[in-house]
Amino acid sequence: MIRSISESPLYPIVNPKSIAFFGASNTFMRMGSIMLSSLQALGFEGEIFPIHPTEKVVRGLAAYTTIMDVPKVPDLAVIVLPTEIVCQTLDDCGKKGIRHAIVVSGGFREAGPEGALLQKELEAIARRHDIRFLGPNCLGVANLHLKLNPTPIKADCPAGFVGLASQSGSFITQMFNYLHRHGMGFSTALSVGNEASIDIVDCLEYLGACPDTKVITLYIEGINRGNKFVEIAKAITPRKPIVALYVGGSETGKQAGLSHTGSLSGPNEIYDGIFKQCGIIRARTLTELFDYALALGTLPRPAGNRVVVQTHSGGPGATAADSCGRSGLSLPRLSPETVEKLKPLIPKTASTANPVDMTFSKNPAEDFFSIPDILLQDKQTDMLLAYFVSPGIFIERILGEMGIEEDLVALETDKLSIDYAEKFFSLTRLHPDKPIVGFTYRSLQEKMIRTLLDRGIPVYQDPERAVRAMAAVWKYYEKRESMKADAA
Amino acid sequence: MIRSISESPLYPIVNPKSIAFFGASNTFMRMGSIMLSSLQALGFEGEIFPIHPTEKVVRGLAAYTTIMDVPKVPDLAVIVLPTEIVCQTLDDCGKKGIRHAIVVSGGFREAGPEGALLQKELEAIARRHDIRFLGPNCLGVANLHLKLNPTPIKADCPAGFVGLASQSGSFITQMFNYLHRHGMGFSTALSVGNEASIDIVDCLEYLGACPDTKVITLYIEGINRGNKFVEIAKAITPRKPIVALYVGGSETGKQAGLSHTGSLSGPNEIYDGIFKQCGIIRARTLTELFDYALALGTLPRPAGNRVVVQTHSGGPGATAADSCGRSGLSLPRLSPETVEKLKPLIPKTASTANPVDMTFSKNPAEDFFSIPDILLQDKQTDMLLAYFVSPGIFIERILGEMGIEEDLVALETDKLSIDYAEKFFSLTRLHPDKPIVGFTYRSLQEKMIRTLLDRGIPVYQDPERAVRAMAAVWKYYEKRESMKADAA
Repeated sequence: MIRSISESPLYPIVNPKSIAFFGASNTFMRMGSIMLSSLQALGFEGEIFPIHPTEKVVRGLAAYTTIMDVPKVPDLAVIVLPTEIVCQTLDDCGKKGIRHAIVVSGGFREAGPEGALLQKELEAIARRHDIRFLGPNCLGVANLHLKLNPTPIKADCPAGFVGLASQSGSFITQMFNYLHRHGMGFSTALSVGNEASIDIVDCLEYLGACPDTKVITLYIEGINRGNKFVEIAKAITPRKPIVALYVGGSETGKQAGLSHTGSLSGPNEIYDGIFKQCGIIRARTLTELFDYALALGTLPRPAGNRVVVQTHSGGPGATAADSCGRSGLSLPRLSPETVEKLKPLIPKTASTANPVDMTFSKNPAEDFFSIPDILLQDKQTDMLLAYFVSPGIFIERILGEMGIEEDLVALETDKLSIDYAEKFFSLTRLHPDKPIVGFTYRSLQEKMIRTLLDRGIPVYQDPERAVRAMAAVWKYYEKRESMKADAA
Repeated sequence: MIRSISESPLYPIVNPKSIAFFGASNTFMRMGSIMLSSLQALGFEGEIFPIHPTEKVVRGLAAYTTIMDVPKVPDLAVIVLPTEIVCQTLDDCGKKGIRHAIVVSGGFREAGPEGALLQKELEAIARRHDIRFLGPNCLGVANLHLKLNPTPIKADCPAGFVGLASQSGSFITQMFNYLHRHGMGFSTALSVGNEASIDIVDCLEYLGACPDTKVITLYIEGINRGNKFVEIAKAITPRKPIVALYVGGSETGKQAGLSHTGSLSGPNEIYDGIFKQCGIIRARTLTELFDYALALGTLPRPAGNRVVVQTHSGGPGATAADSCGRSGLSLPRLSPETVEKLKPLIPKTASTANPVDMTFSKNPAEDFFSIPDILLQDKQTDMLLAYFVSPGIFIERILGEMGIEEDLVALETDKLSIDYAEKFFSLTRLHPDKPIVGFTYRSLQEKMIRTLLDRGIPVYQDPERAVRAMAAVWKYYEKRESMKADAA
């Protein structure tokens, strides 16, 4: 187990100051050119040395005919070349003194016996030069905190706290936008490809030590170094949550994985056992992987599994309660003191059972502060789950009815929506030990919800997703405590 | 069982030509005013007679001091008044000759023993005048095909094919926007409230006969007329799918339902059994309820459960395959002829196993027509599931690189995206017997996906959701056939 992030062979790959780039040209429709353009678009501040046999300038950067011509030894080589010349190129890099690389090119083990032989050759060259590399057949890395994104899709989103180590490159480059829409961002995302030199276990170790990463997510088709995986994971989960999606378990998933990266998969139950043993939370789908990551990265440790559901609509409340039952979360009765405190703020028709159903808002401002504040003060409450109908649509209508101009209505609606969101957010400071989560059927991009997401309050599009994520947080900490007790 | 929709007591409630509206005024912040404003906003073309004790004009409409003053007998009375005067008002309506009503007001059975007595009185008045009504404690009805929406939230979306009968009013008025974002719309949505006169079984019967409704969705907290429900459902499912969400099964869900509408719930297993017996598809969450509705309302009957997954990214393909395995769908091998036909269109690195992973697009236009067309021609293929990375982001970059102006880039990108979507959509005409479904991690509102949704191709935000919906379609038709065989 590494003690510091800089001990990891991944450190210079994830934090390079200078990059030799093979395979980019001024022909845009080549993969290499596309990847270099993403890197430039995000504003990477290090040096980039394109290597090209004929072009003198590549995408505005001075290009070099061979790696030997580059005036310094770059920290990292990114290789996006035809399979046939990859081995020679890595050898050249080694001769130059480069010790870290990303081999994006495919056509190796995943392509059959001939490719497997070629991969052996690549591995031998790397060993000879003491090179550690990601790939081949991968998309490399995105370290958004360093504005490093040499992947095919531009990162149109801020950096965040989600680390990802993935046996699929797609889940790195294709999820930037998804994560942002759902209130997250990557810290560092790693695509391991065929894992010829650096594997998913190395990535896990790196992310465990990465200070920008609050939650580690894993997309797994098969793990080769099982013992090491368990050792590293066990060392990480007591201080940082790990969520894993394993798709090799079903017969169909296994076949798909085999043709994808050629990795070995095992029965579902074996992976289930390994994950449990390590305190890893298992997700069944990609949606769940990131739903859990959002909750684990933003919520404090709950004292228990007791949830109070706040709603002004019966159906969404009942649905949330049903989800709690299914996920092993309980709905405590409110204390008589809490009910007394609520009474002046809620309509006569309201229910002070749990779900607390206000039926309608006497004063919308109370919904976002006073009422949830009272609910969170209750000693029976470990977590709060609040249902949001977009207040925007109500504000808009009232202002419209008042005869206010359309532009001004939009402006004022946004202002009030942000104001409500900020009030709600302030509850996290008043109740720092109680997870606060929302759900809505409106778009997450509406002003109020978006503000909550940007502030770090998880809001989900379905109570089931919210509740499963809350249960994952509770179970993570429960398991962590039991692992600590076992170790003591 | 009714033979024609007009035999249903709901017919005049869902299709009124004239409405007496109680409880709206020129004070906007009253529930009645808000509901009348929604009705006006959607452009209801029938007559509306607001009844108000003092105001002569309500929201621009001539108002009447009492119902007796109205110059004709309206088809429907909508009552949004304080609890205390509801009984008297319904009695007045009866005297006027009105035979159908929606009682929105709460404070009846759901409010405790006193409210229960009041509800008995209301029922007696209705019986005396031969009145059938929805509610009390409901939000009534939205019939978007008739521009009828007297619910608190404006319908910002077109009409569609989803019928809903709900024991929660929220799921009617709060889901307009949700359904539209996901590619659907309501035909008719009914909120039953306390079911004093018309219950969810009557609604089911109505929706079964409603020609605009292609799929029926039910939100159930508890059913009282169990035998009748089974009889009606069994008569409907052989020709129209029913999807049901039941939340009364868990202890927490049961309690929530009780305080919501005071309805009786029973153990989960009993409802499971009833649903199975009737050929009703059960959804576990609201997301699933409408995911299934989208697939059942748009897809043809598949000949079997064999899915071909088309992707250009390994991870999303493997994840989709894993979901298929979990949902009982199989992934057949492609025939040698299909593989031969594909070869010229796909890169050397592509996998012609299933998932068919192109790894990248040689020509994006082929991804949306020729390749899926070949896959659908294969006799082994019963259904196609295609993964969409938004082509928009690639087109945008290429046009940007070509030095084209930003505005023009956006315009051309939209044009090409629509073009791809139309090509893909044309496959449904070439292969009318094979369900075609998509999934993406991009926003459903991006041009290409939005166009597909508007054309009636279901696209989901996760392969798991897509696959579960496809499995629901397959199971629905399997069950339907077995029920027909049993009946024969």
